[in-house]
Amino acid sequence: MKLSVASPIDLAAVFEQGRRLVERTLDEMLSPSLDIPTKILDAMRYSIFAGGKRLRPTLVYASAEALGLAAAKASSAAAAFEMIHTYSLIHDDLPAMDDDDLRRGKPTNHKVFGEGIAILAGDALLTLAFEALGRASLDCSLPSKACAELIMSAADAAGFKGMVGGQAADLDAEGWRRKNHGFRAGRVLEYIHRHKTAALIRASVEAGAILAGARPALRRALKRYGDAIGLAFQIADDILDVTANAATLGKRGSDRDNDKLTYASLYGVESARRRALACVREAHAALKPLGPRAPALHAIADFILSRDR
Amino acid sequence: MKLSVASPIDLAAVFEQGRRLVERTLDEMLSPSLDIPTKILDAMRYSIFAGGKRLRPTLVYASAEALGLAAAKASSAAAAFEMIHTYSLIHDDLPAMDDDDLRRGKPTNHKVFGEGIAILAGDALLTLAFEALGRASLDCSLPSKACAELIMSAADAAGFKGMVGGQAADLDAEGWRRKNHGFRAGRVLEYIHRHKTAALIRASVEAGAILAGARPALRRALKRYGDAIGLAFQIADDILDVTANAATLGKRGSDRDNDKLTYASLYGVESARRRALACVREAHAALKPLGPRAPALHAIADFILSRDR
Repeated sequence: MKLSVASPIDLAAVFEQGRRLVERTLDEMLSPSLDIPTKILDAMRYSIFAGGKRLRPTLVYASAEALGLAAAKASSAAAAFEMIHTYSLIHDDLPAMDDDDLRRGKPTNHKVFGEGIAILAGDALLTLAFEALGRASLDCSLPSKACAELIMSAADAAGFKGMVGGQAADLDAEGWRRKNHGFRAGRVLEYIHRHKTAALIRASVEAGAILAGARPALRRALKRYGDAIGLAFQIADDILDVTANAATLGKRGSDRDNDKLTYASLYGVESARRRALACVREAHAALKPLGPRAPALHAIADFILSRDR
Repeated sequence: MKLSVASPIDLAAVFEQGRRLVERTLDEMLSPSLDIPTKILDAMRYSIFAGGKRLRPTLVYASAEALGLAAAKASSAAAAFEMIHTYSLIHDDLPAMDDDDLRRGKPTNHKVFGEGIAILAGDALLTLAFEALGRASLDCSLPSKACAELIMSAADAAGFKGMVGGQAADLDAEGWRRKNHGFRAGRVLEYIHRHKTAALIRASVEAGAILAGARPALRRALKRYGDAIGLAFQIADDILDVTANAATLGKRGSDRDNDKLTYASLYGVESARRRALACVREAHAALKPLGPRAPALHAIADFILSRDR
């Protein structure tokens, strides 16, 4: 599916550059030479280097570059968003949450290191992410107000008003059909999707804009873009949970096992696909104020629907 | 025990003012009117308002005031350190960690809200703490570099190079006598104490200094003070675990149950007391460059040894 009106771009190369840059930064930040207990560092590195598309870092880079900032200057922030994402996966996989044994075809963190260390590894990644955002502010010589905004935007998106709030609502919504939530289900679902996944994706895009010193109108445009692809991403994820088999996902289809509230389970796959497509159109429209400067962002919006995780 | 050379001060009033100020700020930041799932907010409020001395916030205020900053300007940062402390207690109490049922005489967070929500409540408090530090930077109109330093100092102290690293080493050290670690036990213990508790106490003191725009020599002095009282605090905690009974502590003496590595178990209670006393002397000495401006900080150093939690 090709919706973009932007100039052709090699999206694989965009992701490859993002992956390479952010993994170098992550490797430095999680250096084995640090004076810390081996086990916690091993646990952090295990999950952070377990593969993955590096979507959030790539969005930080693409957003920064669209506004004229060199990608290298955005690497600390890119690493921060990958660490927040990875911490959330480690904690979500715990027995008290989704209770998953596999993630990307490998045993989950707590299966390898035990629950205690897995919880701490997540805590440490979340904390290190904010240290990295402080570093990013120094790297870009941000004005004081922008430094605070960078931190607050990420915290807002990751915390109880964002990702954690979404995960808490998701936990609460388990077995929703059995509990017969009825007409509230649609509102709960919208809340979960906007918060659990979309908020952090939006904040990744916004971080690039803050680092690049974007003027307010462009920053708002990028937030709107981030919100739209974030929602599309979570809906696509729901669809994949229904359609993909365990082999493709590299984990058990645990969302189905737990009878979770998802777009696909509530509205059906076809309706979910239409909704995701509308979000991607919205994302393209949001980029208009940037003109031809954002080919990578346009291409990433299209990618959201075509990916297989 | 009275070691201080500072002018007399009503320490109870200092703690009372700190408690009042920080609880008002925490109440605002965790307002029930926010659009977030009730359960996660209830869980966060349950632990944050479970009582406690509010030592870390009081240190932020006392440090800021010693350098001429009005306490009200330091409230967001004070709240941040209390949230980091509270998140660490919630996660430490989990079955996969210390497995405690009671904290300050009340059921622990996971006993009331379940493990999943308890993990998320901790995550959310940690995240909100960084939002509060961003807010603190705006409140004090900090220069850009100081904003980044405020964030990085707190993250460094709370993360794998600080508190989380200490907790990870502590988990690893359980049953150390059974495992016969031998001569390494002393080094492991020093690592745990410096990181698990002292680092965050030091960072609380340092935050006050950063907010007040302290020049480097005074900031170093306050860091040294914070390190010293932080270590004294943890040693005093070890002693209390041995001497206090379960009724006074309001929880089972779980450190003994788990055969944990502590100052009291390794060196005996008397030797531990002497070490803590030496730390408090060091703390008073560190404050010399501040002259008579820091009566509250002197008084808090003395308090560390006399407290019963």
